[in-house]
Amino acid sequence: MNEAAKKKLLQMIPHALYVLTSQAHDKTAASTMSWVNQASFKPPMISVGIKKDTFTFEVVKESKAFVLNYLGEGQKDIAQKFFKHVEPLGNTLAGEAFGPSPHLKFPVFPNMAGYLECKVTHIVDSGDHAVVVAEVLEAELGPASGPLLLTSTGWSYGG
Amino acid sequence: MNEAAKKKLLQMIPHALYVLTSQAHDKTAASTMSWVNQASFKPPMISVGIKKDTFTFEVVKESKAFVLNYLGEGQKDIAQKFFKHVEPLGNTLAGEAFGPSPHLKFPVFPNMAGYLECKVTHIVDSGDHAVVVAEVLEAELGPASGPLLLTSTGWSYGG
Repeated sequence: MNEAAKKKLLQMIPHALYVLTSQAHDKTAASTMSWVNQASFKPPMISVGIKKDTFTFEVVKESKAFVLNYLGEGQKDIAQKFFKHVEPLGNTLAGEAFGPSPHLKFPVFPNMAGYLECKVTHIVDSGDHAVVVAEVLEAELGPASGPLLLTSTGWSYGG
Repeated sequence: MNEAAKKKLLQMIPHALYVLTSQAHDKTAASTMSWVNQASFKPPMISVGIKKDTFTFEVVKESKAFVLNYLGEGQKDIAQKFFKHVEPLGNTLAGEAFGPSPHLKFPVFPNMAGYLECKVTHIVDSGDHAVVVAEVLEAELGPASGPLLLTSTGWSYGG
């Protein structure tokens, strides 16, 4: 394997940044994600690569559902807050106010570019991330202009 | 479901353009793809959303392997050639010369930005596209500068 070529080509796949939220029993998860892809038109489906050894993956496996909050341009500082584990404090997560999504009642951040409410249909548990395939149940736009492209942040996550 | 919001948010997910090739027995497939995502670091894995009612999906299901050729900036005209079914003519596909990839011996286009040779590990067959999860076996860079971003072409594939 040409490791340098593999790294460069995997980093060439374009990605944006999102904050995924989920809840199961008394657990609330909120994490920055970037490996998101459309998976079907009818029904509308997406796939998300979620790191397996994380609290967020544990909660998603249990709840079989999540909300994908789209970060807007210029919301890099918010993306950074959700790299580490955060616990809700009242109706805030990492200082960001949230409300309940319409069906799942999972955290939605009203100042972002919008969100998708999703129900998990399949989990492919093969590498260090799981490929979580989900159907989109509901969608709503927010006031921010999206997406927040990974390339615009100077960070990389891939390779 | 807010259909307009769903469409806008799904189209907000960034994508690039690639030509996926595969072979099984006497069949050769080559199709433009855009729903590509990284799926794991260790081992290196990707996922590709492949339309299910296509010749290319039929060949990938049979061969359980493919090559993902990365289109470069300015290769929109090549992307367009592989929207429709093409059959090889000597060592060309749609007028584009190809050679064999190192392990699989599937078509590689030497003028693009590079390629990944991949072995399929899982196929999630739920919507109108299958989520094909695969391990990267080999990678090589080409002379073109990539990626060819979908947004740069004026086309859309998502929503």
